[in-house]
Amino acid sequence: MLKENERIDDIELKGLKIIQDKTGFCFGIDAVLVANFCHIKKNSKVVDLGTGTGIIPLILWGKNKPSKIYAIEIQKEVADMAKRSMELNEVEENIEILNIDLKEASKYIDIDSVDVVVSNPPYMNSGGGLLNPSDKKAISRHELLCSLEDIIKEARKLLKDNGSFYMIHRPYRLVDIIYLLRKYKLEPKILRFIHPKRGKEPNMILIKAVKGGNPELRTKAPLYVYDDDGKYTKEIDDIYGR
Amino acid sequence: MLKENERIDDIELKGLKIIQDKTGFCFGIDAVLVANFCHIKKNSKVVDLGTGTGIIPLILWGKNKPSKIYAIEIQKEVADMAKRSMELNEVEENIEILNIDLKEASKYIDIDSVDVVVSNPPYMNSGGGLLNPSDKKAISRHELLCSLEDIIKEARKLLKDNGSFYMIHRPYRLVDIIYLLRKYKLEPKILRFIHPKRGKEPNMILIKAVKGGNPELRTKAPLYVYDDDGKYTKEIDDIYGR
Repeated sequence: MLKENERIDDIELKGLKIIQDKTGFCFGIDAVLVANFCHIKKNSKVVDLGTGTGIIPLILWGKNKPSKIYAIEIQKEVADMAKRSMELNEVEENIEILNIDLKEASKYIDIDSVDVVVSNPPYMNSGGGLLNPSDKKAISRHELLCSLEDIIKEARKLLKDNGSFYMIHRPYRLVDIIYLLRKYKLEPKILRFIHPKRGKEPNMILIKAVKGGNPELRTKAPLYVYDDDGKYTKEIDDIYGR
Repeated sequence: MLKENERIDDIELKGLKIIQDKTGFCFGIDAVLVANFCHIKKNSKVVDLGTGTGIIPLILWGKNKPSKIYAIEIQKEVADMAKRSMELNEVEENIEILNIDLKEASKYIDIDSVDVVVSNPPYMNSGGGLLNPSDKKAISRHELLCSLEDIIKEARKLLKDNGSFYMIHRPYRLVDIIYLLRKYKLEPKILRFIHPKRGKEPNMILIKAVKGGNPELRTKAPLYVYDDDGKYTKEIDDIYGR
Protein backbone atom coordinates (compact mmCIF):
# COMPACT_ATOMS: atom_id res chain seq x y z
CA MET A 1 0.00 0.00 0.00
CA LEU A 2 2.81 2.44 0.81
CA LYS A 3 5.74 3.36 -1.40
CA GLU A 4 9.05 4.79 -0.33
CA ASN A 5 8.84 8.13 1.44
CA GLU A 6 5.10 7.78 1.97
CA ARG A 7 3.17 7.82 5.19
CA ILE A 8 -0.46 7.50 6.26
CA ASP A 9 -2.02 10.50 7.99
CA ASP A 10 -5.32 10.60 9.86
CA ILE A 11 -7.42 13.49 8.52
CA GLU A 12 -9.32 13.63 11.84
CA LEU A 13 -12.73 13.18 10.23
CA LYS A 14 -14.77 9.97 10.56
CA GLY A 15 -11.56 7.94 10.78
CA LEU A 16 -10.57 8.77 7.20
CA LYS A 17 -6.90 8.47 6.28
CA ILE A 18 -4.71 9.88 3.53
CA ILE A 19 -1.41 8.76 2.01
CA GLN A 20 1.08 11.60 1.62
CA ASP A 21 4.66 11.90 0.40
CA LYS A 22 6.93 12.92 3.27
CA THR A 23 9.10 14.91 0.85
CA GLY A 24 6.31 16.23 -1.39
CA PHE A 25 3.31 18.48 -1.21
CA CYS A 26 1.16 17.79 1.88
CA PHE A 27 -2.34 19.15 2.24
CA GLY A 28 -2.72 22.47 4.00
CA ILE A 29 -5.37 24.64 5.58
CA ASP A 30 -6.47 25.93 2.15
CA ALA A 31 -7.83 22.51 1.14
CA VAL A 32 -9.60 22.16 4.48
CA LEU A 33 -11.14 25.63 4.19
CA VAL A 34 -12.44 25.24 0.66
CA ALA A 35 -13.84 21.77 1.39
CA ASN A 36 -15.72 23.19 4.36
CA PHE A 37 -16.93 26.16 2.30
CA CYS A 38 -18.69 23.85 -0.18
CA HIS A 39 -22.40 23.27 0.12
CA ILE A 40 -23.00 19.69 -1.02
CA LYS A 41 -26.12 17.56 -1.00
CA LYS A 42 -26.25 13.77 -0.65
CA ASN A 43 -27.25 13.27 -4.27
CA SER A 44 -24.75 15.78 -5.61
CA LYS A 45 -22.36 14.93 -8.43
CA VAL A 46 -19.09 16.64 -7.59
CA VAL A 47 -15.83 17.26 -9.44
CA ASP A 48 -12.54 18.32 -7.83
CA LEU A 49 -10.23 19.93 -10.40
CA GLY A 50 -6.61 19.28 -9.43
CA THR A 51 -7.20 17.04 -6.45
CA GLY A 52 -3.57 16.28 -5.55
CA THR A 53 -3.59 13.50 -2.97
CA GLY A 54 -7.40 13.64 -2.74
CA ILE A 55 -7.85 15.58 0.46
CA ILE A 56 -10.85 17.63 -0.70
CA PRO A 57 -12.92 14.61 -1.86
CA LEU A 58 -12.13 12.82 1.40
CA ILE A 59 -13.38 15.75 3.49
CA LEU A 60 -16.49 16.15 1.30
CA TRP A 61 -17.14 12.43 1.60
CA GLY A 62 -16.62 12.47 5.36
CA LYS A 63 -19.04 15.34 5.82
CA ASN A 64 -21.75 14.86 3.18
CA LYS A 65 -21.36 11.46 1.45
CA PRO A 66 -22.30 12.86 -2.00
CA SER A 67 -23.30 10.17 -4.49
CA LYS A 68 -20.28 10.65 -6.74
CA ILE A 69 -17.05 12.60 -6.67
CA TYR A 70 -14.70 12.72 -9.65
CA ALA A 71 -11.25 13.83 -8.56
CA ILE A 72 -8.91 14.88 -11.35
CA GLU A 73 -5.14 14.89 -11.08
CA ILE A 74 -2.69 15.18 -13.97
CA GLN A 75 0.42 13.91 -12.15
CA LYS A 76 0.61 10.13 -12.46
CA GLU A 77 2.39 9.41 -9.17
CA VAL A 78 0.18 11.81 -7.24
CA ALA A 79 -3.00 10.38 -8.78
CA ASP A 80 -1.74 6.89 -7.93
CA MET A 81 -1.22 7.92 -4.32
CA ALA A 82 -4.76 9.37 -4.23
CA LYS A 83 -6.17 6.12 -5.69
CA ARG A 84 -4.47 4.08 -2.97
CA SER A 85 -5.88 6.48 -0.35
CA MET A 86 -9.39 5.84 -1.65
CA GLU A 87 -8.81 2.07 -1.50
CA LEU A 88 -7.41 2.42 2.01
CA ASN A 89 -10.66 4.13 3.04
CA GLU A 90 -12.79 1.79 0.89
CA VAL A 91 -14.41 4.71 -0.90
CA GLU A 92 -13.05 3.99 -4.38
CA GLU A 93 -16.60 3.40 -5.66
CA ASN A 94 -17.66 6.87 -4.60
CA ILE A 95 -14.49 8.83 -5.20
CA GLU A 96 -13.11 8.15 -8.64
CA ILE A 97 -9.59 9.40 -9.26
CA LEU A 98 -9.05 10.36 -12.90
CA ASN A 99 -5.42 10.67 -13.93
CA ILE A 100 -6.12 13.16 -16.72
CA ASP A 101 -5.47 16.77 -17.65
CA LEU A 102 -8.24 18.86 -16.11
CA LYS A 103 -8.54 20.73 -19.40
CA GLU A 104 -9.95 17.45 -20.77
CA ALA A 105 -12.28 16.68 -17.87
CA SER A 106 -15.35 17.25 -20.04
CA LYS A 107 -14.23 14.39 -22.32
CA TYR A 108 -14.68 11.99 -19.37
CA ILE A 109 -17.56 13.60 -17.50
CA ASP A 110 -20.77 14.75 -19.18
CA ILE A 111 -21.01 18.42 -20.03
CA ASP A 112 -23.72 20.34 -18.08
CA SER A 113 -24.11 17.44 -15.64
CA VAL A 114 -22.26 18.41 -12.47
CA ASP A 115 -23.77 19.99 -9.33
CA VAL A 116 -20.58 21.20 -7.70
CA VAL A 117 -17.08 21.85 -9.00
CA VAL A 118 -14.43 22.59 -6.40
CA SER A 119 -10.80 23.57 -6.84
CA ASN A 120 -7.75 24.42 -4.78
CA PRO A 121 -5.65 25.28 -7.81
CA PRO A 122 -1.98 26.11 -8.15
CA TYR A 123 -1.73 29.69 -6.92
CA MET A 124 1.37 31.07 -8.48
CA ASN A 125 1.64 32.54 -11.94
CA SER A 126 3.99 30.52 -14.08
CA GLY A 127 5.96 33.30 -15.78
CA GLY A 128 9.46 33.12 -14.30
CA GLY A 129 10.92 29.99 -15.90
CA LEU A 130 12.97 29.15 -12.81
CA LEU A 131 10.89 26.10 -12.02
CA ASN A 132 11.63 22.49 -12.74
CA PRO A 133 8.54 21.21 -14.56
CA SER A 134 9.11 17.68 -13.29
CA ASP A 135 8.96 18.86 -9.70
CA LYS A 136 5.70 17.65 -8.13
CA LYS A 137 5.63 20.47 -5.58
CA ALA A 138 6.11 23.06 -8.32
CA ILE A 139 3.26 21.57 -10.36
CA SER A 140 0.96 21.64 -7.35
CA ARG A 141 1.80 25.25 -6.52
CA HIS A 142 2.41 27.01 -9.83
CA GLU A 143 0.29 27.49 -12.93
CA LEU A 144 2.62 25.31 -14.98
CA LEU A 145 0.18 22.81 -16.42
CA CYS A 146 -3.06 24.78 -16.14
CA SER A 147 -3.96 28.43 -15.85
CA LEU A 148 -6.72 29.98 -13.77
CA GLU A 149 -8.63 30.47 -17.01
CA ASP A 150 -8.32 26.76 -17.88
CA ILE A 151 -9.90 25.81 -14.56
CA ILE A 152 -12.75 28.30 -14.83
CA LYS A 153 -13.43 27.36 -18.46
CA GLU A 154 -13.58 23.64 -17.63
CA ALA A 155 -15.74 24.21 -14.53
CA ARG A 156 -18.20 26.07 -16.68
CA LYS A 157 -18.43 23.22 -19.18
CA LEU A 158 -19.00 20.59 -16.50
CA LEU A 159 -21.56 22.43 -14.37
CA LYS A 160 -25.31 22.32 -14.85
CA ASP A 161 -27.20 25.58 -14.90
CA ASN A 162 -27.31 26.85 -11.32
CA GLY A 163 -24.48 24.50 -10.40
CA SER A 164 -21.88 25.91 -7.99
CA PHE A 165 -18.17 26.46 -8.36
CA TYR A 166 -16.08 26.81 -5.19
CA MET A 167 -12.47 27.87 -5.14
CA ILE A 168 -9.79 29.05 -2.75
CA HIS A 169 -7.15 31.39 -4.11
CA ARG A 170 -4.99 34.40 -3.32
CA PRO A 171 -6.40 37.92 -2.90
CA TYR A 172 -3.88 39.46 -5.30
CA ARG A 173 -5.56 37.49 -8.12
CA LEU A 174 -9.09 38.61 -7.21
CA VAL A 175 -9.44 40.83 -10.27
CA ASP A 176 -8.43 37.99 -12.62
CA ILE A 177 -10.76 35.62 -10.79
CA ILE A 178 -13.80 37.88 -10.88
CA TYR A 179 -13.16 38.97 -14.46
CA LEU A 180 -12.76 35.40 -15.72
CA LEU A 181 -15.70 34.02 -13.74
CA ARG A 182 -18.06 36.58 -15.20
CA LYS A 183 -16.54 36.13 -18.66
CA TYR A 184 -17.42 32.42 -18.46
CA LYS A 185 -20.90 33.08 -17.00
CA LEU A 186 -20.03 31.75 -13.57
CA GLU A 187 -21.39 34.65 -11.53
CA PRO A 188 -19.53 35.27 -8.26
CA LYS A 189 -22.08 35.10 -5.44
CA ILE A 190 -20.14 34.71 -2.17
CA LEU A 191 -16.72 36.05 -1.29
CA ARG A 192 -14.88 35.55 1.96
CA PHE A 193 -11.45 36.82 2.88
CA ILE A 194 -9.21 34.83 5.17
CA HIS A 195 -6.77 36.82 7.28
CA PRO A 196 -3.95 35.31 9.35
CA LYS A 197 -5.20 37.47 12.24
CA ARG A 198 -7.09 40.65 13.05
CA GLY A 199 -5.60 43.83 11.61
CA LYS A 200 -3.64 41.89 8.96
CA GLU A 201 -4.29 41.89 5.24
CA PRO A 202 -6.00 38.76 3.88
CA ASN A 203 -3.81 36.01 2.43
CA MET A 204 -6.54 33.76 1.02
CA ILE A 205 -10.00 34.13 -0.49
CA LEU A 206 -12.90 31.74 -0.74
CA ILE A 207 -15.24 32.34 -3.63
CA LYS A 208 -18.49 30.72 -4.72
CA ALA A 209 -19.85 31.29 -8.21
CA VAL A 210 -23.07 30.03 -9.75
CA LYS A 211 -23.44 29.10 -13.40
CA GLY A 212 -25.93 31.56 -14.88
CA GLY A 213 -26.48 33.24 -11.50
CA ASN A 214 -27.79 36.79 -11.14
CA PRO A 215 -25.28 39.53 -10.42
CA GLU A 216 -25.21 40.26 -6.71
CA LEU A 217 -22.21 39.43 -4.59
CA ARG A 218 -22.31 38.81 -0.86
CA THR A 219 -19.06 39.46 0.98
CA LYS A 220 -19.03 37.68 4.30
CA ALA A 221 -17.35 38.86 7.48
CA PRO A 222 -13.62 37.99 7.50
CA LEU A 223 -12.37 34.61 8.68
CA TYR A 224 -9.40 34.92 11.02
CA VAL A 225 -7.07 31.95 11.40
CA TYR A 226 -5.27 32.94 14.60
CA ASP A 227 -6.53 34.97 17.52
CA ASP A 228 -4.51 37.66 19.27
CA ASP A 229 -2.79 35.01 21.43
CA GLY A 230 -1.54 33.09 18.39
CA LYS A 231 -3.99 30.21 18.89
CA TYR A 232 -6.47 29.02 16.27
CA THR A 233 -9.72 30.99 16.44
CA LYS A 234 -12.88 29.20 17.49
CA GLU A 235 -14.11 29.18 13.89
CA ILE A 236 -10.97 27.35 12.72
CA ASP A 237 -11.21 24.90 15.60
CA ASP A 238 -14.82 24.24 14.60
CA ILE A 239 -13.82 23.63 10.98
CA TYR A 240 -11.18 21.14 12.10
CA GLY A 241 -13.79 19.57 14.41
CA ARG A 242 -11.75 20.12 17.55
CA MET B 1 -25.71 83.53 -0.02
CA LEU B 2 -28.32 81.14 1.41
CA LYS B 3 -31.60 80.14 -0.15
CA GLU B 4 -34.67 78.80 1.60
CA ASN B 5 -34.11 75.54 3.51
CA GLU B 6 -30.33 75.89 3.29
CA ARG B 7 -27.84 76.04 6.12
CA ILE B 8 -24.06 76.41 6.45
CA ASP B 9 -22.20 73.50 8.04
CA ASP B 10 -18.61 73.48 9.26
CA ILE B 11 -16.78 70.50 7.72
CA GLU B 12 -14.30 70.53 10.64
CA LEU B 13 -11.25 70.84 8.38
CA LYS B 14 -9.19 74.06 8.15
CA GLY B 15 -12.33 76.14 8.85
CA LEU B 16 -13.96 75.08 5.56
CA LYS B 17 -17.73 75.36 5.32
CA ILE B 18 -20.40 73.81 3.12
CA ILE B 19 -23.91 74.88 2.18
CA GLN B 20 -26.44 72.03 2.43
CA ASP B 21 -30.16 71.70 1.93
CA LYS B 22 -31.86 70.85 5.21
CA THR B 23 -34.45 68.77 3.37
CA GLY B 24 -32.11 67.29 0.72
CA PHE B 25 -29.11 65.02 0.48
CA CYS B 26 -26.44 65.88 3.07
CA PHE B 27 -22.94 64.51 2.87
CA GLY B 28 -22.22 61.30 4.69
CA ILE B 29 -19.32 59.19 5.87
CA ASP B 30 -18.86 57.69 2.38
CA ALA B 31 -17.73 61.05 0.93
CA VAL B 32 -15.37 61.58 3.86
CA LEU B 33 -13.90 58.08 3.49
CA VAL B 34 -13.29 58.26 -0.25
CA ALA B 35 -11.79 61.76 0.01
CA ASN B 36 -9.38 60.49 2.66
CA PHE B 37 -8.57 57.39 0.59
CA CYS B 38 -7.30 59.55 -2.31
CA HIS B 39 -3.61 60.13 -2.73
CA ILE B 40 -3.25 63.61 -4.18
CA LYS B 41 -0.20 65.75 -4.87
CA LYS B 42 -0.02 69.54 -4.77
CA ASN B 43 0.28 69.82 -8.54
CA SER B 44 -2.42 67.23 -9.25
CA LYS B 45 -5.27 67.95 -11.59
CA VAL B 46 -8.33 66.32 -10.06
CA VAL B 47 -11.88 65.60 -11.22
CA ASP B 48 -14.80 64.66 -8.98
CA LEU B 49 -17.54 62.93 -10.97
CA GLY B 50 -20.92 63.64 -9.38
CA THR B 51 -19.81 66.07 -6.70
CA GLY B 52 -23.19 66.90 -5.19
CA THR B 53 -22.70 69.83 -2.84
CA GLY B 54 -18.92 69.66 -3.32
CA ILE B 55 -17.86 67.91 -0.13
CA ILE B 56 -15.13 65.78 -1.72
CA PRO B 57 -13.33 68.71 -3.41
CA LEU B 58 -13.50 70.70 -0.19
CA ILE B 59 -11.87 67.87 1.81
CA LEU B 60 -9.22 67.33 -0.90
CA TRP B 61 -8.53 71.06 -0.95
CA GLY B 62 -8.35 71.25 2.84
CA LYS B 63 -5.86 68.39 3.01
CA ASN B 64 -3.71 68.71 -0.13
CA LYS B 65 -4.43 71.99 -1.94
CA PRO B 66 -4.14 70.38 -5.41
CA SER B 67 -3.64 72.94 -8.19
CA LYS B 68 -7.03 72.34 -9.80
CA ILE B 69 -10.18 70.41 -9.02
CA TYR B 70 -13.05 70.12 -11.49
CA ALA B 71 -16.23 69.10 -9.72
CA ILE B 72 -19.03 67.92 -11.94
CA GLU B 73 -22.70 67.95 -10.99
CA ILE B 74 -25.63 67.51 -13.34
CA GLN B 75 -28.34 68.92 -11.05
CA LYS B 76 -28.62 72.68 -11.55
CA GLU B 77 -29.74 73.58 -8.04
CA VAL B 78 -27.20 71.30 -6.41
CA ALA B 79 -24.38 72.61 -8.60
CA ASP B 80 -25.46 76.15 -7.75
CA MET B 81 -25.30 75.34 -4.04
CA ALA B 82 -21.80 73.87 -4.54
CA LYS B 83 -20.69 77.02 -6.41
CA ARG B 84 -21.88 79.21 -3.56
CA SER B 85 -19.98 76.98 -1.10
CA MET B 86 -16.78 77.50 -3.08
CA GLU B 87 -17.35 81.28 -3.03
CA LEU B 88 -18.06 81.17 0.69
CA ASN B 89 -14.67 79.48 1.19
CA GLU B 90 -12.99 81.69 -1.44
CA VAL B 91 -11.74 78.63 -3.35
CA GLU B 92 -13.72 79.18 -6.56
CA GLU B 93 -10.47 79.66 -8.50
CA ASN B 94 -9.22 76.25 -7.44
CA ILE B 95 -12.43 74.27 -7.33
CA GLU B 96 -14.43 74.76 -10.48
CA ILE B 97 -18.01 73.50 -10.36
CA LEU B 98 -19.20 72.35 -13.77
CA ASN B 99 -22.97 71.99 -14.09
CA ILE B 100 -22.80 69.35 -16.81
CA ASP B 101 -23.60 65.71 -17.38
CA LEU B 102 -20.57 63.68 -16.26
CA LYS B 103 -20.89 61.63 -19.45
CA GLU B 104 -19.77 64.81 -21.24
CA ALA B 105 -16.94 65.73 -18.88
CA SER B 106 -14.33 65.01 -21.55
CA LYS B 107 -15.86 67.75 -23.74
CA TYR B 108 -14.91 70.29 -21.07
CA ILE B 109 -11.71 68.79 -19.67
CA ASP B 110 -8.87 67.53 -21.86
CA ILE B 111 -8.77 63.81 -22.52
CA ASP B 112 -5.73 62.00 -21.01
CA SER B 113 -4.90 65.02 -18.86
CA VAL B 114 -6.13 64.25 -15.33
CA ASP B 115 -4.05 62.84 -12.45
CA VAL B 116 -6.87 61.75 -10.19
CA VAL B 117 -10.54 61.05 -10.76
CA VAL B 118 -12.67 60.46 -7.68
CA SER B 119 -16.31 59.49 -7.38
CA ASN B 120 -18.91 58.79 -4.75
CA PRO B 121 -21.52 57.76 -7.28
CA PRO B 122 -25.20 56.94 -6.87
CA TYR B 123 -25.21 53.45 -5.39
CA MET B 124 -28.54 51.98 -6.28
CA ASN B 125 -29.42 50.33 -9.54
CA SER B 126 -32.17 52.21 -11.32
CA GLY B 127 -34.44 49.43 -12.56
CA GLY B 128 -37.56 49.68 -10.40
CA GLY B 129 -39.36 52.70 -11.82
CA LEU B 130 -40.78 53.75 -8.45
CA LEU B 131 -38.57 56.83 -8.26
CA ASN B 132 -39.44 60.39 -9.07
CA PRO B 133 -36.75 61.50 -11.51
CA SER B 134 -37.07 65.14 -10.39
CA ASP B 135 -36.26 64.15 -6.80
CA LYS B 136 -32.77 65.43 -5.93
CA LYS B 137 -32.23 62.79 -3.27
CA ALA B 138 -33.20 60.03 -5.71
CA ILE B 139 -30.79 61.37 -8.33
CA SER B 140 -27.97 61.45 -5.80
CA ARG B 141 -28.64 57.93 -4.61
CA HIS B 142 -29.83 55.96 -7.65
CA GLU B 143 -28.33 55.29 -11.05
CA LEU B 144 -31.01 57.37 -12.74
CA LEU B 145 -28.90 59.76 -14.76
CA CYS B 146 -25.66 57.79 -14.99
CA SER B 147 -24.68 54.17 -14.65
CA LEU B 148 -21.58 52.72 -13.04
CA GLU B 149 -20.31 52.02 -16.54
CA ASP B 150 -20.78 55.68 -17.57
CA ILE B 151 -18.63 56.81 -14.65
CA ILE B 152 -15.85 54.30 -15.32
CA LYS B 153 -15.88 55.02 -19.04
CA GLU B 154 -15.59 58.78 -18.49
CA ALA B 155 -12.88 58.38 -15.81
CA ARG B 156 -10.83 56.38 -18.27
CA LYS B 157 -11.11 59.09 -20.93
CA LEU B 158 -10.07 61.87 -18.56
CA LEU B 159 -7.14 60.14 -16.84
CA LYS B 160 -3.54 60.19 -18.03
CA ASP B 161 -1.69 56.91 -18.23
CA ASN B 162 -0.91 55.85 -14.66
CA GLY B 163 -3.52 58.26 -13.37
CA SER B 164 -5.63 57.02 -10.45
CA PHE B 165 -9.33 56.47 -10.07
CA TYR B 166 -10.79 56.32 -6.55
CA MET B 167 -14.34 55.28 -5.77
CA ILE B 168 -16.51 54.27 -2.86
CA HIS B 169 -19.34 51.88 -3.57
CA ARG B 170 -21.30 48.93 -2.21
CA PRO B 171 -19.82 45.43 -1.85
CA TYR B 172 -22.73 43.75 -3.64
CA ARG B 173 -21.64 45.55 -6.83
CA LEU B 174 -17.98 44.45 -6.54
CA VAL B 175 -18.21 42.06 -9.49
CA ASP B 176 -19.64 44.76 -11.76
CA ILE B 177 -17.03 47.23 -10.54
CA ILE B 178 -14.05 44.95 -11.08
CA TYR B 179 -15.33 43.66 -14.39
CA LEU B 180 -15.97 47.15 -15.78
CA LEU B 181 -12.73 48.62 -14.45
CA ARG B 182 -10.67 45.98 -16.19
CA LYS B 183 -12.82 46.23 -19.32
CA TYR B 184 -11.93 49.93 -19.52
CA LYS B 185 -8.23 49.36 -18.68
CA LEU B 186 -8.46 50.87 -15.23
CA GLU B 187 -6.73 48.09 -13.32
CA PRO B 188 -7.95 47.67 -9.71
CA LYS B 189 -4.91 48.00 -7.43
CA ILE B 190 -6.21 48.59 -3.90
CA LEU B 191 -9.40 47.32 -2.31
CA ARG B 192 -10.59 48.02 1.20
CA PHE B 193 -13.78 46.84 2.81
CA ILE B 194 -15.58 48.97 5.37
CA HIS B 195 -17.57 47.13 8.00
CA PRO B 196 -19.97 48.75 10.46
CA LYS B 197 -18.20 46.77 13.20
CA ARG B 198 -16.16 43.63 13.83
CA GLY B 199 -17.88 40.38 12.88
CA LYS B 200 -20.31 42.17 10.53
CA GLU B 201 -20.35 41.95 6.76
CA PRO B 202 -18.95 44.98 4.94
CA ASN B 203 -21.38 47.67 3.75
CA MET B 204 -18.97 49.81 1.72
CA ILE B 205 -15.86 49.33 -0.38
CA LEU B 206 -13.06 51.69 -1.30
CA ILE B 207 -11.31 50.90 -4.56
CA LYS B 208 -8.32 52.43 -6.31
CA ALA B 209 -7.64 51.64 -9.96
CA VAL B 210 -4.77 52.80 -12.14
CA LYS B 211 -5.09 53.51 -15.85
CA GLY B 212 -2.89 50.97 -17.62
CA GLY B 213 -1.72 49.47 -14.31
CA ASN B 214 -0.35 45.94 -14.01
CA PRO B 215 -2.66 43.25 -12.66
CA GLU B 216 -2.05 42.75 -8.96
CA LEU B 217 -4.59 43.71 -6.36
CA ARG B 218 -3.81 44.57 -2.76
CA THR B 219 -6.65 44.04 -0.31
CA LYS B 220 -6.08 46.02 2.84
CA ALA B 221 -7.14 45.04 6.34
CA PRO B 222 -10.80 45.93 7.01
CA LEU B 223 -11.82 49.37 8.19
CA TYR B 224 -14.30 49.21 11.06
CA VAL B 225 -16.54 52.22 11.68
CA TYR B 226 -17.71 51.43 15.22
CA ASP B 227 -15.93 49.56 17.99
CA ASP B 228 -17.59 47.00 20.24
CA ASP B 229 -18.88 49.79 22.52
CA GLY B 230 -20.67 51.53 19.65
CA LYS B 231 -18.19 54.42 19.51
CA TYR B 232 -16.23 55.43 16.43
CA THR B 233 -13.00 53.46 16.10
CA LYS B 234 -9.71 55.29 16.43
CA GLU B 235 -9.18 55.10 12.68
CA ILE B 236 -12.48 56.85 12.00
CA ASP B 237 -11.73 59.49 14.64
CA ASP B 238 -8.36 60.06 12.95
CA ILE B 239 -10.02 60.45 9.56
CA TYR B 240 -12.42 63.01 10.99
CA GLY B 241 -9.43 64.70 12.68
CA ARG B 242 -10.87 64.36 16.19
